[in-house]
Amino acid sequence: MTISMHSAGAPVFVRMLTNLLGWLDKAQAHAEARKFDPNNYLGLRLAPDMLPFSKQIQIASDAAKACMARLAGVEVPKWDDNEATLAELRARVQKTIDYVNSFSAAQIDGSEGRTITIPMRSGEPLVFSGETYLKHYALPNLFFHVTTAYALLRHGGVEIGKSDYLGR
Amino acid sequence: MTISMHSAGAPVFVRMLTNLLGWLDKAQAHAEARKFDPNNYLGLRLAPDMLPFSKQIQIASDAAKACMARLAGVEVPKWDDNEATLAELRARVQKTIDYVNSFSAAQIDGSEGRTITIPMRSGEPLVFSGETYLKHYALPNLFFHVTTAYALLRHGGVEIGKSDYLGR
Repeated sequence: MTISMHSAGAPVFVRMLTNLLGWLDKAQAHAEARKFDPNNYLGLRLAPDMLPFSKQIQIASDAAKACMARLAGVEVPKWDDNEATLAELRARVQKTIDYVNSFSAAQIDGSEGRTITIPMRSGEPLVFSGETYLKHYALPNLFFHVTTAYALLRHGGVEIGKSDYLGR
Repeated sequence: MTISMHSAGAPVFVRMLTNLLGWLDKAQAHAEARKFDPNNYLGLRLAPDMLPFSKQIQIASDAAKACMARLAGVEVPKWDDNEATLAELRARVQKTIDYVNSFSAAQIDGSEGRTITIPMRSGEPLVFSGETYLKHYALPNLFFHVTTAYALLRHGGVEIGKSDYLGR
């Protein structure tokens, strides 16, 4: 087997999002043990001008979903960012895993040179090749937002460590 | 061009480590503007039982260096973790970039099935195929530690944002 556009992306998304489910489970257990509302996590930030925990999860989800759709050349599904509980965020992550798994390798492989155009709210769209988009935009975004979510939970006292992060 | 073991790893390491140099520059400027010792960053943590900022940089460096060496089948160089200033950490990051760039694509490509054995301080070594090692260990470790370094700087008031992270 040689590495391919599908194998370089989809299994990494699925692995990290699955690990994230484990961190959410530990966050839930931590809240129950300390008898606080687990939905309190949703507003956590490391700085007041940062997006909160809930948004970190939603953007991580979007990074994976949009990458799969764009590399396959299908429309990116729009999902409302309306999760208001930890349980709903968990469901959003699971929905993302299922979406990533719904693509076959054949739909993604060979997309190295596909032109990927990302509309920006302000200014010119971003334009990448498929390979550049996967390696320097989608994967870094996924890792950025899951790691930030991890850091927020860690900062909030949840007992997670490197093995939870890597999912070994 | 098709994605390969070299192209899936080396340019991602170099891009993220180069972006990290930019965050360190902004951290230095922030310290100068506020007239505090920039070496104060080195001990920052988000929780008391977490490795400090300096160690996040050293481990990110190690993730990239060890991955290149192991995939190429050469001995992983040992670098002392003795950086005591922000300038020395910057030099460590640059040294890592130079090391990654010292490998040709031909040295790394085709390493998908190479057996990678990582000795652990306690217990059995970890054993991966080259492709699993790159995707589920080396890259996640690199992103974990650079993003944690980013989060520490962001938490510490340094004005960095997503475009600094992605390096666009």
